[in-house]
Amino acid sequence: MVKKDKYKIAVVGATGAVGRRMVSILEERNFPVACLTALASARSVGRTLSFRGQDIAVGELKEDSFKGIDIALFSAGASVSRQYAPIAVKSGCVAIDNSSAWRMKKEVPLVVPEVNPSSLGKIWGIIANPNCSTIQMVVALKPIHDKYRIRRVVVSTYQSVSGSGYKAIEELEQQSRDILEGKPVQKNVYPHQIAFNCLPHIDEFLENGYTKEEMKMVNETRKILGDEMIEISPTTVRVPVFYSHSEAINVETELPIKANEVKDLLSSSLGISVVDNPNKNEYPQAIKACGKKDVVVGRIREDLTRANAINFWVVSDNLLKGAAYNAVQIAELLLKQVSP
Amino acid sequence: MVKKDKYKIAVVGATGAVGRRMVSILEERNFPVACLTALASARSVGRTLSFRGQDIAVGELKEDSFKGIDIALFSAGASVSRQYAPIAVKSGCVAIDNSSAWRMKKEVPLVVPEVNPSSLGKIWGIIANPNCSTIQMVVALKPIHDKYRIRRVVVSTYQSVSGSGYKAIEELEQQSRDILEGKPVQKNVYPHQIAFNCLPHIDEFLENGYTKEEMKMVNETRKILGDEMIEISPTTVRVPVFYSHSEAINVETELPIKANEVKDLLSSSLGISVVDNPNKNEYPQAIKACGKKDVVVGRIREDLTRANAINFWVVSDNLLKGAAYNAVQIAELLLKQVSP
Repeated sequence: MVKKDKYKIAVVGATGAVGRRMVSILEERNFPVACLTALASARSVGRTLSFRGQDIAVGELKEDSFKGIDIALFSAGASVSRQYAPIAVKSGCVAIDNSSAWRMKKEVPLVVPEVNPSSLGKIWGIIANPNCSTIQMVVALKPIHDKYRIRRVVVSTYQSVSGSGYKAIEELEQQSRDILEGKPVQKNVYPHQIAFNCLPHIDEFLENGYTKEEMKMVNETRKILGDEMIEISPTTVRVPVFYSHSEAINVETELPIKANEVKDLLSSSLGISVVDNPNKNEYPQAIKACGKKDVVVGRIREDLTRANAINFWVVSDNLLKGAAYNAVQIAELLLKQVSP
Repeated sequence: MVKKDKYKIAVVGATGAVGRRMVSILEERNFPVACLTALASARSVGRTLSFRGQDIAVGELKEDSFKGIDIALFSAGASVSRQYAPIAVKSGCVAIDNSSAWRMKKEVPLVVPEVNPSSLGKIWGIIANPNCSTIQMVVALKPIHDKYRIRRVVVSTYQSVSGSGYKAIEELEQQSRDILEGKPVQKNVYPHQIAFNCLPHIDEFLENGYTKEEMKMVNETRKILGDEMIEISPTTVRVPVFYSHSEAINVETELPIKANEVKDLLSSSLGISVVDNPNKNEYPQAIKACGKKDVVVGRIREDLTRANAINFWVVSDNLLKGAAYNAVQIAELLLKQVSP
């Protein structure tokens, strides 16, 4: 990719929950877009998206879709990314991929711009956007790791249905209505009722008893923080919330750690808002983090069981910082590093 | 209390969410009730409860309410229990108290019948029923502690609104309706919207940054398991679920621990059902635990970060095993121990 005043951008999966937010964030951030190509599967062709006051027709994703494109933002699932990201790169495009397809490949940078910008490197092909639940956790962990050196993390998540896309949002809405009206519940996206229930099950189960979502938190966190010694013990849970994921995080560090120090540290860290006034009932909440770009941290308190451990609560909009915004941030980082 | 064929029972707070279940469990368990007295505050007088096909008029709780009563089951909040439990005992009654008022008094037994039946002792005055989130955790921890010796527990809860009583159930229902209809939300029970949201806030905040609910889990667990060395690091969270609490629990033990052994151990333990077939998407769920007396455990898997740690997911009906059923179990245990 060469330096230009404006770039040709494609969004793959443009009609999805994340894709639509990618388009609106490109507009909101005033990203130097020369022209925007919206791509999706054949059944979305004919739909339009609004970008800078114009209607953009959605085109069908094909092998020749990437001709002349500078940057392609992918959010159409792992199998689409596995097939089309290499094609995009072959066409001379940088592919920023929001799926799990490429994240753990050694040669693919896995980037959270506030955390590991230098991992982006200088030669760009596929760049991976981490998993939503990982991103918000590592943004909070990074300053703590730098100062206290993290040894072990025990994390339990409270993840919203929007992480499973529009159909899951509709499913929570419809199931909630049906239950309130005393009607039987229909299940399509999730194997069990999600309305007024909690499911300790996100993505597929693996042989070791963990889900893929849980192992993403383990493996991606280590890769992003560049430290294979960090131990992570996750439980990922879907809760009946529409937008934003919450996480209860317990961190053990090498050095003794104090709640007040961590509050100050995180308050002055990039991409983090601290909301932590228990006396005023102020703490991070899913409904309040929704639409915000920062990761919100609160309930910061020392672990009473040891001098080198701390508990906190992290909330973030999973479609923004957890997906679309982080991908656009990667694109912005890329532009800064393009040689003239 | 002396041995009898049947006993005079009072339920204090009989019209509440827990009180009503106390009455129905006394009936369901065929408890030897000679006569049932339903007590509540003045504003509930005039209401009736059904017990064994008869309508029981609700009487006003007064100082002389306990004359002739053998066992009083209290579930009307801590201040009522603080005032009336000693009066009940003075009247010659055993008071089984579901509030937090007496739990941590040294001379008051804090009993989960499957876990520490011997703590009941031989001289009975006030007997405390533990907090809902504590009960379901200790039922699962006890067999593990006996076999592997527990060192540390990190627990995150997913607690239903029924723990805050009928008004909270109505609030979740009303808020959910209002949001689905695009109307503004009214807040009364909780300081923030609970529908489609998570609140890391149960009971009041303390100076140390923890909530009272969290400190109950710490202190009550140690008292019930009789081991002040067990370290517990809790985060308690209210979720938009009507009934049953869920808990993600990480346990570190002195001895190495294996998931398969724990599955076998818990499967054969009192008061526990193991539901743990990830391949069939079978795991404990709030909506399925509702109405069940057992604590349901699943997602049992080794902590990948160390040989002496394990993760699991515990769900239980907070109004039954977490409150009413445990209280009636204490009464049953009492009857077994009454001298002839």
